[in-house]
Parts: sequence; C-alpha cells; structure tokens
Amino acid sequence: MISARFLPLLAGTLLAAAAPAVAATTPSVTELAAPAAKAASATRIDPTFWWVGMKNPKLQLLVHSPGIASSTASLKTYEGVTLDGVQKLESPNYLLLNLTISPTAKPGKLQLEFKGAKKMTYAYELRQRTTPGDKQKVQGLNQQDFIYFLMPDRFSNGEPKNDYIPDMRAPKVARDSMYSRHGGDLKGIENHFDYFKSLGATAIWMTPVVENDMPKASYHGYALTDYYNTDRRYGTLEEYRQFVDKAHRNGLKVVHDVVLNHMGSKNYLFLDQPAKDWFNQWPSFTRSNYNSSALNDPYGSELDRKLYNRGWFDTTMPDVNQSNPLVATYLIQNFLWWVEYTGLDAYRIDTYPYSDPKFLMQWGQALNEEFPNLFKFGEAWVGSTAQQAFFARNIFQPVDGFKSNLESVFDFQSQGAIHDALRGDQPNMNRVYEALQGDWMYEDATRNVTFLDNHDMSRFYSVIGEDFAKYKLGVAWLLTTRGIPQLYYGTEVLMKNFSNPDGKVREDFPGGFAGDKTNYFTAAGRTGQAGEAFTYLSTLANYRKTHPVVATGKLMQFIPQDGVYTYFRYNDQGQTVMVMLNGNKDEKTVDGTRFAERTAGFTSGTEVATGATLSDLKSFKIPGRTAWVVELKK
Amino acid sequence: MISARFLPLLAGTLLAAAAPAVAATTPSVTELAAPAAKAASATRIDPTFWWVGMKNPKLQLLVHSPGIASSTASLKTYEGVTLDGVQKLESPNYLLLNLTISPTAKPGKLQLEFKGAKKMTYAYELRQRTTPGDKQKVQGLNQQDFIYFLMPDRFSNGEPKNDYIPDMRAPKVARDSMYSRHGGDLKGIENHFDYFKSLGATAIWMTPVVENDMPKASYHGYALTDYYNTDRRYGTLEEYRQFVDKAHRNGLKVVHDVVLNHMGSKNYLFLDQPAKDWFNQWPSFTRSNYNSSALNDPYGSELDRKLYNRGWFDTTMPDVNQSNPLVATYLIQNFLWWVEYTGLDAYRIDTYPYSDPKFLMQWGQALNEEFPNLFKFGEAWVGSTAQQAFFARNIFQPVDGFKSNLESVFDFQSQGAIHDALRGDQPNMNRVYEALQGDWMYEDATRNVTFLDNHDMSRFYSVIGEDFAKYKLGVAWLLTTRGIPQLYYGTEVLMKNFSNPDGKVREDFPGGFAGDKTNYFTAAGRTGQAGEAFTYLSTLANYRKTHPVVATGKLMQFIPQDGVYTYFRYNDQGQTVMVMLNGNKDEKTVDGTRFAERTAGFTSGTEVATGATLSDLKSFKIPGRTAWVVELKK
Repeated sequence: MISARFLPLLAGTLLAAAAPAVAATTPSVTELAAPAAKAASATRIDPTFWWVGMKNPKLQLLVHSPGIASSTASLKTYEGVTLDGVQKLESPNYLLLNLTISPTAKPGKLQLEFKGAKKMTYAYELRQRTTPGDKQKVQGLNQQDFIYFLMPDRFSNGEPKNDYIPDMRAPKVARDSMYSRHGGDLKGIENHFDYFKSLGATAIWMTPVVENDMPKASYHGYALTDYYNTDRRYGTLEEYRQFVDKAHRNGLKVVHDVVLNHMGSKNYLFLDQPAKDWFNQWPSFTRSNYNSSALNDPYGSELDRKLYNRGWFDTTMPDVNQSNPLVATYLIQNFLWWVEYTGLDAYRIDTYPYSDPKFLMQWGQALNEEFPNLFKFGEAWVGSTAQQAFFARNIFQPVDGFKSNLESVFDFQSQGAIHDALRGDQPNMNRVYEALQGDWMYEDATRNVTFLDNHDMSRFYSVIGEDFAKYKLGVAWLLTTRGIPQLYYGTEVLMKNFSNPDGKVREDFPGGFAGDKTNYFTAAGRTGQAGEAFTYLSTLANYRKTHPVVATGKLMQFIPQDGVYTYFRYNDQGQTVMVMLNGNKDEKTVDGTRFAERTAGFTSGTEVATGATLSDLKSFKIPGRTAWVVELKK
Repeated sequence: MISARFLPLLAGTLLAAAAPAVAATTPSVTELAAPAAKAASATRIDPTFWWVGMKNPKLQLLVHSPGIASSTASLKTYEGVTLDGVQKLESPNYLLLNLTISPTAKPGKLQLEFKGAKKMTYAYELRQRTTPGDKQKVQGLNQQDFIYFLMPDRFSNGEPKNDYIPDMRAPKVARDSMYSRHGGDLKGIENHFDYFKSLGATAIWMTPVVENDMPKASYHGYALTDYYNTDRRYGTLEEYRQFVDKAHRNGLKVVHDVVLNHMGSKNYLFLDQPAKDWFNQWPSFTRSNYNSSALNDPYGSELDRKLYNRGWFDTTMPDVNQSNPLVATYLIQNFLWWVEYTGLDAYRIDTYPYSDPKFLMQWGQALNEEFPNLFKFGEAWVGSTAQQAFFARNIFQPVDGFKSNLESVFDFQSQGAIHDALRGDQPNMNRVYEALQGDWMYEDATRNVTFLDNHDMSRFYSVIGEDFAKYKLGVAWLLTTRGIPQLYYGTEVLMKNFSNPDGKVREDFPGGFAGDKTNYFTAAGRTGQAGEAFTYLSTLANYRKTHPVVATGKLMQFIPQDGVYTYFRYNDQGQTVMVMLNGNKDEKTVDGTRFAERTAGFTSGTEVATGATLSDLKSFKIPGRTAWVVELKK
C-alpha cells in the first residue's frame, strides 16, 4: 500500500500491486539509522515523472518496492523509448531501469511490467515540456536583481489548513518554541508579493521548501526527506509550481534552495538504503571537520579531506556518497526535474564545497547543458577570496582535477568586510575596498551574491551596535556595490539579535501571523526607526531598479583615504553614480579632483536618498558616518 | 676628466679625450633633482664591459660624455661585431650604440670612434665568459638552503681602510648615529664565514652592496647611485667578485639584493638625465601610494595604479620609467652583467610589484634565458596569499597581460601568521596552518622564502614578548616548514627591538666592531639565553642540513586541533620527521592515531633538539608551548 504521505508524489499510477507478500528484509542501514521505513511497503519510482524532449536522452529510474529486485522488468513497446538495461542494487527492494528517450518520442505513459516474485505494471508518465522559449520560465539572475531571502516557516502564515498535517512526524505548529514549526507557508509569502515589490526586490529566495519530515527542528528545511515533494506544511507540490508561476507574473523570480551533500535521516533512501555505498559510511558517527582547507591544500592529509567531504553534517543528516555514479545520476536528475517542473530561476546551493568535487562538476555541467539560463550560486563559507573563488568560475588552472563551473557564490568576503568595517568605533572602510580587490580571480565576480546577513549569522543591525548611521552605510553599500544584493527578511525593518543560538535570528516577521501586535508589512505599522529603515532601503532599491547604471554599470573604486571610501558605477551612455562612504565619526573634506577620471564632464550631483544637491564636484564636505549615493549631472 | 669616484668602474680605457670644450648644457632634471652632476665632464659607457658568447647577441651601449650627441660614432672593423645603429637622446650628453656580437666573436677591445664636435676613441672591452659549466657559479637556491640575511654596514667592520672614503658624499663612519654608516664591510662578513657555517646557513643575503653615494642615510643600500659599482665603503668591485668566489669555496651561496624601480637621486643618470622619459615625472613630488591593490583590482582607477607604479618611493629615490624600452634594456643588461661578472647565485628583488608589470616579465625572461640556474625572489609585501602568488609563478591566467615569471617571493603571509599566532597570550596555530593552505595558487610554493623577521619590521623576539618558549616554536617552524628559510642577523642571539624607527632593528651585531664589549660570534661570548638560542637554532639548522628530508621532503599538515599543529616532512626513501607545535600554555594529549597516514610503519621517534625518545606514536603528551621535531624510527 502506498502511504498517504507519498500520495501527492505519484504522477505515475500503480496499476496492479503484486499479490505475494515478500519476505521481510533487513534494511541496509547504519547503526545510526532510524527503524525500518514506514514507507517500506510502498512502490515509487524516482524521478516521479519525466519529459520528452530533454537534451540528454538518458533516464535512470529508481524503482523502490519491497522485494522488487527479484523481479524482471520490461517495457511495453513505446515509440522512441527503449529500456536499455535493468540493474540490481544491494537492497532487494530496488531496481534501476536505464531508458533512452529519443528526440522523436511523444508524451504519454510508459507501461513498465515487473514479473517474478513481485508482479506489477506501472504507468510511468512522460510529459510534454513547457515551450522552451517561454520567458516566464528559468530567467536566471543577474546584477539587476535584488533578492529577498526568507524562511518560509517564519515569514507569514497565509493558509491555516496546512498548520496541522497529522501524518507528518512534527504535525503541529508551536510558535512558542524556537525550533518548532511556526506555520508560515507559501500562501503567506504570496500574500506579500506587493511588499517585496514596494521594497524594490525582484527575486525571492526561501530556505528549502522540500519535504523535511523529521521529528524535530527541521523548520529550516535542510534535512530533506523526499527529493520529489514539497513540505506540505508550506503547500503541495502543485501549489509550489503555481507559486513560481504567480511570482513570475508579479515580476518576481524564484530561487530554489537545495542541498546536494546530505539528506534528512528520515528520507526513505536512508531508511531503506539502496546500497551501503549510497552513503558515506563510518564505523561510528563521524562529524565533518567543517573546514574546506584540506580540500585544496597541497599538503592536506587524506583524513582531513575525507572528514570534510564525507563526514556527516549532523547525526540527523546522513552524508550522500556522490562519488557513486548511480547516486550522482539520481541527484542530477532530481535537480533537472525541479527546474523543468516549476520553471524556477535559480538554485542556491547549501554547503556547496562539502560535496564531492567531481560530482559538483558533473552536476553543474548537466544543468548548464539542459538549462543554460538557470543561475546557480553556492554557499562556500570560507576565509579568503581565493578559497571562495575556487568554488566559482575562476581564472585558476584545475587543482586536483577540479575546476568549478558554478556561476556564482555568496560573497562571504565582502560580508565579513562590511561587518568588520562597521563593527568597531572607528569604521575601517579600507576593509570593504580590499574585499573586492581580489575579484581578478573570478571569471566574473559581478555575479557574486552580496549580503549583510543571513539565517546563520548575527543580524547586521545587532553586529553594528544598533547604530542607524552605520546601518545606512551598510545598506547603501549593499545596493550600490557590484554583485547581486540579497537582503535577509527583517533587515529592512531593523530586526535584530545575535546568532547564538541561531533560532534568535530566525524570528517571525512581525505582521506575518494572526494576532501579531506589530505589522511591519504596512507603512502605518512601521513606526519609528523601522519605518525610516524601510524608507531608506526601499528608496535606494527602487532607484537601483529604475537606474540600471547602479546595478549593471561598470565599477571603479578608489583606494580609501582618511576613512572615506569612494566608488562609481558608470556606463557608456554617460550615466555615472558616485558613492561616498564616510566611516569616520567626523566630517571629512574630500579632494574631488582625485576622481577626475569619473567626474570629468559632470558639474553637480543629486544625492538619491535625500534629494540634496552637490553643486561642487571638486571638493566635498561629507558629514561623519554618512553614505552618499550621488547621481552626477552634466 | 674622469672623476676619481668613477675610476674603478672603467674597464674600457679612455684613449683620447676630445679637445674642444663643449657648451655647458642644462641637464634635463626635474625641479627635484640635485645640481648638475659632478661627473658631468666624464666619459663612461654602460655596461662598463661585456662578454662574447652571451646567448643574446644584442648589446646597447649608453655613452655618456658632455656634448657627445653631436658626434658621429663608428666601430673599427672587429670580426663578429657590428655597429647596427646610433641613437640620440633628449640630452646632448648621451649616445646609444646598438651592437650585434655574433657567437663567433672573440674577446678583445672594440675601438669606438667618435667624430664631430667631440672627438675621441674608446676601447670597449669584450671579455671571455667563465666556463658556463663551472659549478661554482650561479648555483641558484632551493629548499636545501638556509639564508643568513644581514646589513653589511651593521654586521662587522673587517677593513678599517674603507671607513673613510673622502670623495664620497658621506665619507665617514659615525657609529653613534642610527642613520649613519657604521663601518661594516665585505671583509667583516668574510671573517665570519665560519660563523654562518656553524649556524647551519648555506647562503648570505646582504642588503645592496652597490654604490649609494647619497649625502645621508643610505647605509641600507637601496638608493643606488651607480649601476656598475659597489659601494667602496664595503669593498671594491673586484673585492666583491672575490667575495662571491670565496663564499662559494666556503660552501656559501650569495644573494645579491637589487632594486629595479628606483635609484638614488645622486645617480649620474638622474643628475644628467638621458631624457625626461627615463623617469616617471610628476608636476611636483608625488609619492607612491604603497598599495599594490589597484594594480590588479578589476575596478581599480588609473590614478591609483599610476600612483603605485610611477609614484616615487621617496624624495631621494626617483622612480625609473621601465616602460621606456631603452631604460628596460639598460636595466636588463645591468642585471645580466652582475651575474656574469660575479657568479652570484640569486637576486633578491626589492619592492618587486612597484615595477612596470610588462618590464618585470621582460626582465625575468632575459635572465631566465641567459642564466637558467639563477634564482630570483621578490619582495611583495602584500596582504593575501593570492596577491602574493600573483607576483610569483602561479596557476592564474594572465591578468591585464601580466603573468609573473618569478621563481619565488618572500612569504609575508606565513611570516604574518607566525607573528599573529605567537603574539598573544593564546597562540593560534591554526593561523600558521592556514598560511600554507593557499599554496595551491603557486606553481611551486616550496620555493617561497620563509622568515621570522627582516630589516623592515619589528624583530621576532620582541614581537613575541621575549618569550623563549615562543621563540623556539617560531624557530622550529621556520626550519621545518616548506620553503627556503631566511634568518635575519641577530635573531639567532635574540637581538630585539621594535621597528619604529627602523634603525632600531638594524643595530650592530655584537662582536662585529672593534671595542664591542659583547662578542656573539664566539660560544664563550654568547652567554645566557643568547647562547641557548644559538644552540637551539643551529642544532635544528644543522640537522636540516644533514637530513634533507626536513628540507626537501614532501610536507603533510593536519588541521590543528586544540591548539596543537602537527605536520610531517617525508620522502619516498621511508624517512619521516614529525613536527608538533603546541601553542597552548598547558600540556596537551594528542591522539596519534589521527596521523596514521604518516606514522604507519614507525614505532618510536627521537626529538632532534633534546635527543629525547618518544616511545609511543599512538598518543602524545606534549608540554605547554613546546616544539617537537621528531625523527621517526621503525
């Protein structure tokens, strides 16, 4: 029988389940695994459906059904589709079917027939692809975008019906507990599309919306329990597809957050492992060393490298063995599937460097070939620009055969710099300047995703000691420097807290939940400095949206002098915006003639946030702790 | 007439000086230049002599003689040598002669005839090259070396005769003044060849020995006033050639310190400039910004780049325009000349990144072609491993057409790391580990020159708070990590001081000067902890010398745990040395099984400095703030 929790998944229909009960098998799980899967008796095939007309004609189906390995499999004649081979795995409950789908194959249902101890027929669906030229699908990201990043559980509860899903391991909402589900959902996010737009955002990134059916603390979404389903507490798979569609129609792109190197321990693939070598097994629980250094250290030990790539992220997150080609194929197909199914615009890849390096290259290549517009950016939380660039497309020769084909990474270097620069009493703008200096190592660092904070670190406003002048320096920098800016939900209304524990920086957005006393979604609700912050940020973000020179123009930066950092965004159409950030407490006089390369031909300027006029470009008096974003005028 | 100060230079002989007095010319000097050169009436030709059989058959002679530009020049028939052209410069006092010397040309004297307003004949010498296969010449450096770095003026006065050279601008020794000459010389260094050898050093690097005939404070040697002479306060040119020879016969290599991008303002080439474009001219004195960032910053301004490369290092150090091909040729020939003349082993290049990038590539290529064994290492005092690797041979694609062909750079990153690591109360060995992690960016980082301190920074022993336990940690690291270690004179006997002002870290070596109360050159003189330091350092350095595995073996490092940093040097011959550095105040228990990759097959070990036996490699108890260098035994 198919467990209710798998029902929404199955696009293929189970036509006839085999009658004979199979002998109970001992699932191949490590000592850390949970008891035998509750879905052990279900039949499912991953990918749950597929398409005709994909560039890669190969498709590998993973059939999971008790005792299926002792059956034979065949495909009823279907024009343009062949079953090239059937492969057994260590577990008796799996079969792999290797198919070829020719470009001429038509959509329809493949009749897969299983004979032997377990008899059944399975109608596997091949769908029509969406018109490849459809501009609403897979738009990618570029510097013109501004990403709003939120945690769906913590943003807004728009659909009370999904607050209680009895067949899930943590079925109920419990807003009073930091690590429980709070009830936010896709509908809640949809309800605030206008909010994002008023803020000037053009894209939404949510922590993973895929199923995390873990007993506790999986509200963050990084403990995936089903590669082919959404978490129903956010919405169904179909509702997610519609969500992407609605976002697109509202001028908002969608970033889908994915994890490649681990899954949740309640994933059926872990509870009933296809083979031991689908996971990185250790004699006893062994944690990652969380340090990518040994990966490309020419003197690194094999042990440190193995601990990094193959150690587990957490007891509840088994590490996937991506060096197993079957696993690699399973993962790659899954990530092709989500793009084709939903039309999402970008993948944000969690813990990117923890994956097997060769797998990362394969994964990237497969996606690049099928979806050239898809934008992919990785989380590589490392300590230097070089190490960060190592995980993006760069100008390095391959190291140990690895050369990243990833479009983009999070810019943890400039984020660290803006924190360091503004944290102390005497802001050090040189640190921010230097953070971009190493961009020569990237193929194109303007694709980097810049940010002030995220769900894993102390909120920016707290880091800078709740100093509103420093806040404006940070926001002005974020929205005018090179890269694709990302804003963590709530930073626009001065949400604060330090990240120890991390739940403190993942609080509910005020106004997103029934009964909230404060509603920061409305101008009226944003009283005091939260309103000022929203206005400042949205003014700059909307200016950025309507003045592409700030977003996509060339950048020229001057070595900071006397604590003042000055840079320009400019284009060949004669538009130039000057940004001047004075980190000092005191007013500074700045010799403008130094910037003649960029100011020649201009006579004055208008500061974007205040509308003030700068009538002299030869000399500036910039007040203490002030950010100027100045549109230059002829 | 030839000024006495040029006499030792002229290998060519002035046969007949032109009779007619030339009209006084106004030297083409910037407003910053000193009055007309006192040598304005002399005739000299650079290079002062040359060789037959150089790989590059081209030779460009710079003739300097008052009014010479209005003369014609011709070469009396000489088999295998042609005068291809004569070129005038802006100044009336220069002529350039372009010669080709065929491989068949024999040594001898070229008769150069000048006719016109200025008539003269000049016998220009072409010498026989030393046998190219002579192993005593141009040995290069590698990891087996250990460089002793000293300032010749401050090390030892071995020849009182050169303490007073009346025709020099600062003729007298004045030991009581920090920025005056103290009288050290080549003879003083030669006198202590045995000292270097007892210490375990294999190479001597001296701050520049070339002429610095400046009015004051040029004891450091970086204000070059004659490209073709030594500073006679150290010894004559011939004495320097003999010095190199003697060093070689004593098993010591010689590193010649050079400056490419600036010269002293009393150089005749600046006092009487061949042309304005031989120097980077500015409307008024303009200092370098001393920041290489803009050089390869994709967003760098033209101004910042120009200030870096073309700004002056100091008012007394005019910046040479290396983008002028004539200047480039002049410099390249000079640096070929010193190698061929002396047989020196390596060039240490001062302020390497300040030079014109394209010139650096030409310069390196010319030297590589003529002297493949010559080792060159540059000073690139920059803030990141990537920026440092940018100036050495690396795995980067060219940036703005620049790709360094330099064998090696000083490792300011690991130097900064060992200072940071040991400076505070709680040594942070992770910083030292991470400093090598970025070595993947180099073509071969084992060629990097590692060091604890030098003449431009606070002395190591002061930085670490005169803590002898920390000192041993630093020394053990220097002599066992990858790279070519360099020791700054006096660090072996705990010389101390902070570098502000820099004269404080350039004090005389005790025992090097007549009347010194302390003599650290002898075991008897090294009382107290200075003796202990010498013993510790020389024990390790001599062990390193006799056990190549420590110097040239492969390196494997493990991510530090609990403040303990462990690494191994090992080779394919089954030799392995384990280094364990405990930065903590307290004893630590270290799980040795973690290092099984390197310890398998070994059962015990001997600590090199103490001779103590480690009988168990499965678990270690290492005392607080201790360095172990352990030879593993089967």
